[in-house]
Amino acid sequence: VILAAIMRQLAGGAPLAGYTALVTAGPTHEPVDPVRYLANRSSGTQGYAIATALAQAGAEVTLVSGPTTLPDPSGVTTIRVESAREMLTACQQALPCDIAVCAAAVADWHVAPSAQKIKKAAHAPPPVLHLVPNPDILATLSQPSPLRPRLIIGFAAETEHLISHATAKRLRKGCDWMVANDVSPATGIMGGTENEVIVIDETGCAHWPRLD
Amino acid sequence: VILAAIMRQLAGGAPLAGYTALVTAGPTHEPVDPVRYLANRSSGTQGYAIATALAQAGAEVTLVSGPTTLPDPSGVTTIRVESAREMLTACQQALPCDIAVCAAAVADWHVAPSAQKIKKAAHAPPPVLHLVPNPDILATLSQPSPLRPRLIIGFAAETEHLISHATAKRLRKGCDWMVANDVSPATGIMGGTENEVIVIDETGCAHWPRLD
Repeated sequence: VILAAIMRQLAGGAPLAGYTALVTAGPTHEPVDPVRYLANRSSGTQGYAIATALAQAGAEVTLVSGPTTLPDPSGVTTIRVESAREMLTACQQALPCDIAVCAAAVADWHVAPSAQKIKKAAHAPPPVLHLVPNPDILATLSQPSPLRPRLIIGFAAETEHLISHATAKRLRKGCDWMVANDVSPATGIMGGTENEVIVIDETGCAHWPRLD
Repeated sequence: VILAAIMRQLAGGAPLAGYTALVTAGPTHEPVDPVRYLANRSSGTQGYAIATALAQAGAEVTLVSGPTTLPDPSGVTTIRVESAREMLTACQQALPCDIAVCAAAVADWHVAPSAQKIKKAAHAPPPVLHLVPNPDILATLSQPSPLRPRLIIGFAAETEHLISHATAKRLRKGCDWMVANDVSPATGIMGGTENEVIVIDETGCAHWPRLD
């Protein structure tokens, strides 16, 4: 995937020994009640691969992962969380660090808490789930602060207007780089094992070809 | 778990060669939009173990499974589905059969379809998810019909009033046996590998001790 390109750009071929990195990965699960949750589709593969590559380059890596079926990467400190709020807390506890790579597919909302477990009743009206915005982890980490990582990388999966949407997202979130993935069906990337990415920084954008 | 007891009762020690069985297992995932879904917590372990045991006893087994991380059991025809509605359709297509074991943790509701993907907008009110009742697979299969399996087994996980709740559930669903699990915290069963069950049929209830 894209990790070779990130590695080249990050380190210019030099190892990352002495650097600390935070990587988020996977989906989040937002509880509805003790047995139900709202989720989004993400395998976590990309974030785990990035964490592994950073560790192999010598960085001290903390991976904050939502629920996945992947094993903990070797040489990486893995912290498992469920919800977006738990993920933000775990990320903040992992600061300070030099590099943050926010590859998790964080849910935009959680479910407003209900007084008790939702019960199915024969004649009751069907329940309604009220959604509440989740914290924006990428934007929160990117805010000016003595603890702000020096390099924060976000991801944008877009189906159209790739560069303009990703450029706007970079400015909105306040991160340093935005990795833009063209996931429109014509590229045949979704579900595939290779990836074409464009990395956008403050100077504009640098295009990388497809990478395995 | 409980499969040894079910096996003894089903076959009296004799093999099930010539019998056909339908087993449901796992959770269901109810789509909210192309990237989000509502889910419930179930590993599918119990249903997969039952399907495997029935196949080993000689039955021709169809396993209709919601999303799990478990491999297809060997010697079993496994059909993967996502939602409760897909699970019901797959079960009905598996009829006729002699035995139906409904071990899936089917979601009580799905989400009313929205016109388009839910979009996060800066100043829009948070979205609301309206829930709609799902079909009751156990009750539907249990309705009188020429295709009704001869033996239909349901499961009841209860934290209190185990026998009265499970007896009422058996009558409400119309199944033949209701396997009642006491999942109250005092039993230490939840998350454990052994299980204490009570099987309720039309004559009352038979208690089995803890089984591995």
